[in-house]
Amino acid sequence: MNDPSTFERFVLENCQRDNLFPKDSKVLLALSGGPDSTALVHVLSGLSAKLNISLGVAHLNHQMRGEESNKDAEFVQILADEFHLPCHVKAMDVKDWAEREGYSFQEGARKCRQQFFSEIAREHHYTLIALGHHQDDQAETVIMNILRGSGLQGLGGILGKSGLFVRPLLNCSRQEILDYLGARKATFREDSSNLDTSYLRNKVRLELIPHIKSDFAPRFKEQLGKMAQLLQWDESFLSEEAQKFFQGLSSRKGSILTLPAGKLKSVHPAILNRVLRFAIQEIKGDLRSVEFDHVQQVCQLLSDNSVGACVLPGDTRISLDKGDLVFSKLNRNAPDFQDENLYSSVLLQIPGETWFEPGKVTFRAKIQSQKIEFNRVKPNQAFLDLDSIGNKIEMRCYLPGDKFWPLGAGGRKKLKEWFIDRKIPKEARPQIPVLTDGSGNIIWVYGHQISETVKIQPETKRVLCLEGFE
Amino acid sequence: MNDPSTFERFVLENCQRDNLFPKDSKVLLALSGGPDSTALVHVLSGLSAKLNISLGVAHLNHQMRGEESNKDAEFVQILADEFHLPCHVKAMDVKDWAEREGYSFQEGARKCRQQFFSEIAREHHYTLIALGHHQDDQAETVIMNILRGSGLQGLGGILGKSGLFVRPLLNCSRQEILDYLGARKATFREDSSNLDTSYLRNKVRLELIPHIKSDFAPRFKEQLGKMAQLLQWDESFLSEEAQKFFQGLSSRKGSILTLPAGKLKSVHPAILNRVLRFAIQEIKGDLRSVEFDHVQQVCQLLSDNSVGACVLPGDTRISLDKGDLVFSKLNRNAPDFQDENLYSSVLLQIPGETWFEPGKVTFRAKIQSQKIEFNRVKPNQAFLDLDSIGNKIEMRCYLPGDKFWPLGAGGRKKLKEWFIDRKIPKEARPQIPVLTDGSGNIIWVYGHQISETVKIQPETKRVLCLEGFE
Repeated sequence: MNDPSTFERFVLENCQRDNLFPKDSKVLLALSGGPDSTALVHVLSGLSAKLNISLGVAHLNHQMRGEESNKDAEFVQILADEFHLPCHVKAMDVKDWAEREGYSFQEGARKCRQQFFSEIAREHHYTLIALGHHQDDQAETVIMNILRGSGLQGLGGILGKSGLFVRPLLNCSRQEILDYLGARKATFREDSSNLDTSYLRNKVRLELIPHIKSDFAPRFKEQLGKMAQLLQWDESFLSEEAQKFFQGLSSRKGSILTLPAGKLKSVHPAILNRVLRFAIQEIKGDLRSVEFDHVQQVCQLLSDNSVGACVLPGDTRISLDKGDLVFSKLNRNAPDFQDENLYSSVLLQIPGETWFEPGKVTFRAKIQSQKIEFNRVKPNQAFLDLDSIGNKIEMRCYLPGDKFWPLGAGGRKKLKEWFIDRKIPKEARPQIPVLTDGSGNIIWVYGHQISETVKIQPETKRVLCLEGFE
Repeated sequence: MNDPSTFERFVLENCQRDNLFPKDSKVLLALSGGPDSTALVHVLSGLSAKLNISLGVAHLNHQMRGEESNKDAEFVQILADEFHLPCHVKAMDVKDWAEREGYSFQEGARKCRQQFFSEIAREHHYTLIALGHHQDDQAETVIMNILRGSGLQGLGGILGKSGLFVRPLLNCSRQEILDYLGARKATFREDSSNLDTSYLRNKVRLELIPHIKSDFAPRFKEQLGKMAQLLQWDESFLSEEAQKFFQGLSSRKGSILTLPAGKLKSVHPAILNRVLRFAIQEIKGDLRSVEFDHVQQVCQLLSDNSVGACVLPGDTRISLDKGDLVFSKLNRNAPDFQDENLYSSVLLQIPGETWFEPGKVTFRAKIQSQKIEFNRVKPNQAFLDLDSIGNKIEMRCYLPGDKFWPLGAGGRKKLKEWFIDRKIPKEARPQIPVLTDGSGNIIWVYGHQISETVKIQPETKRVLCLEGFE
């Protein structure tokens, strides 16, 4: 494609078909200086008359790469001047903020940018915020979600339009964007959007997608784009239906949410799943670490028809009480807490990062085959034989009756006695994450000791590397 | 797992939770003699008292591997006798039947088996037919559907229960089944279910899944199983809603089906997509070769609001007429057919097999990098430079005005003139499949000549091998 107008026409058609920009929109372009958002500035400037929109640009200087970051900000200012666009730039120590607020850097950076763009939009009356995500980002996101075991929402990937945000380049490939910039002789900065590309995303982009494209499906990225579109429609319909149902049934008093169990039982599982997730989200604040198995636990509660309770991530307590399903926050300071037969368990993402609320720890899991330097293992790290663990790891808090086989010891002993031997105060014990394998055996008492049963052996093939960040 | 009762208990729990076998079911076990279905006989025989069901087995001898096939049938008879089960065996030349009926062998074999099992069930009053599909089959199916660019239905994979058919082992892995057979000291035949494992399925099983498991997601198969379950629920709800809508709106007179365009326009795209597919299926008989783009073509017709028509695979004609969307079969013998501005186009699956109705040809597409022996190219074969074709290939019939650059010629000429030069009679021309690239350029006039523009060159990296079977 040597004629840049072909690309511009394609973007125009996409914007019109999906009605991305209602007439007279005032659009803030989120500009990193990398190729994707730079192309966005070029193409939307060219189309602004046809689309009947006005533009501005915004850039958040993450201050992660010193002088480089400042040059990105300068580049953005120059580009804005060239197109006579208002330019909003802010510098912020994102790393420091993320650490203070307890987010991983990536998550923190995304939050900071979203907040900054939304603030600028509100202050300066922008009606939409345009982002440079493209078809390759979409394919990578969908695949990562498949690898994580996502449901329909994750499989639909990035939305063309969500709230204030629009993504006009979502149907364009990375190569088409680079070709367009080349044909335009447009300069850009080396992609600082790498800031939010994780290790997994890079591996998917550089290894997995090329493998699939060359050996299985040459049109894979285009196909994933179409699949994502279909699935987004499906998810939006299901989500709307479930939302109506949820609104009609749920009642909230203070921090307690109630759903009538009898009516839930007769509803289709597709809707029931979503209704339960809405309820958990309302009490927990988000759905982080809430997995398929957790929602199934609640369904089990519902079908058992007896009085019972379970506790999901974020100390979300769900109980069946006089025909109602009751969602509340577990009070760990309640006098009878130790007596309640309750537990909060979270599945560990392998590989990946998982947040464990009670201990306020993020666990990072990696798999590797090379040798480990054992001398350097810190208390927040564990290196385990993956194949002796089985197919899942759950994190939870200490429970009365727990047993544990500490590394090097002669056999299993009561965890409570082990705590006493190690002089760990009673009140500190509920804050210590305990990791268990698929059969419920403790494999790591976080910060203290791994189990003899999962230690690295000469015949170990795959090493599971765990690290916690508080 | 050395204790086979663990496996049996797991299967029992699955059967009970999903209510696979209503009390007093009479279940026909589809038995190939391979490990999966053999395990099914062992486990269900053990559980029949607890589940309150009675059993029988059925085996279709495909006669594909001579004496081997007969030994499979003997094995089945012996196993049935061992468990005192009624045994229904039939021999049939499946290959011959598939060829006569115009199916690929795999598709034909599947149809034959389904028909045979259903017949036996009807004659002998079996209420259910149990199949040996397991978690690994499920993972492979879901991945193959992702690679093919499937929608929600395909992503949900194999259903635990569909019509008469139930799959009690769907949550068990291949390894668990083999371990169970080992613990039971049960013999089985080498897996003759390889009969329906295609080249793509083998490649997914042996290459792609191991790559993903070792480098990305060790619990991938289990995750895909859970994902498939969620998506099956979603699809069943959406499909029920769409079916209600379709039943309420569609009206049929003879071979013509009508939907009111105005009401379609206000319906959610998730439902609209399904309603249009139901309508196409009713007229076409199936949904083979009906792709995302085809359904979008009908949506386009609807949103254009003008009078128009399009023709989808299987000569399914859809037109907008006085506020109605009208689905019918295109009559190619109608006197004004050549004048109609209509075309039927089908996207070619690469790699894969695609049926093209007008020419009654199945096209098989493969990609390879090795050298081709040009001396041996037959008229039903073409070897093309994949990278000079772009991202899709469509098949259609000859259209007035078509131009073509035959291999070795000095430039493009009218296809009609080229037909005349080659003395191809006028009435034969509409039956010749014409393959075009994404820009609409003709790349192969099937059975005759490829285009100069897509020939193999010294710098060709990937060769697209096409072959047609009539």
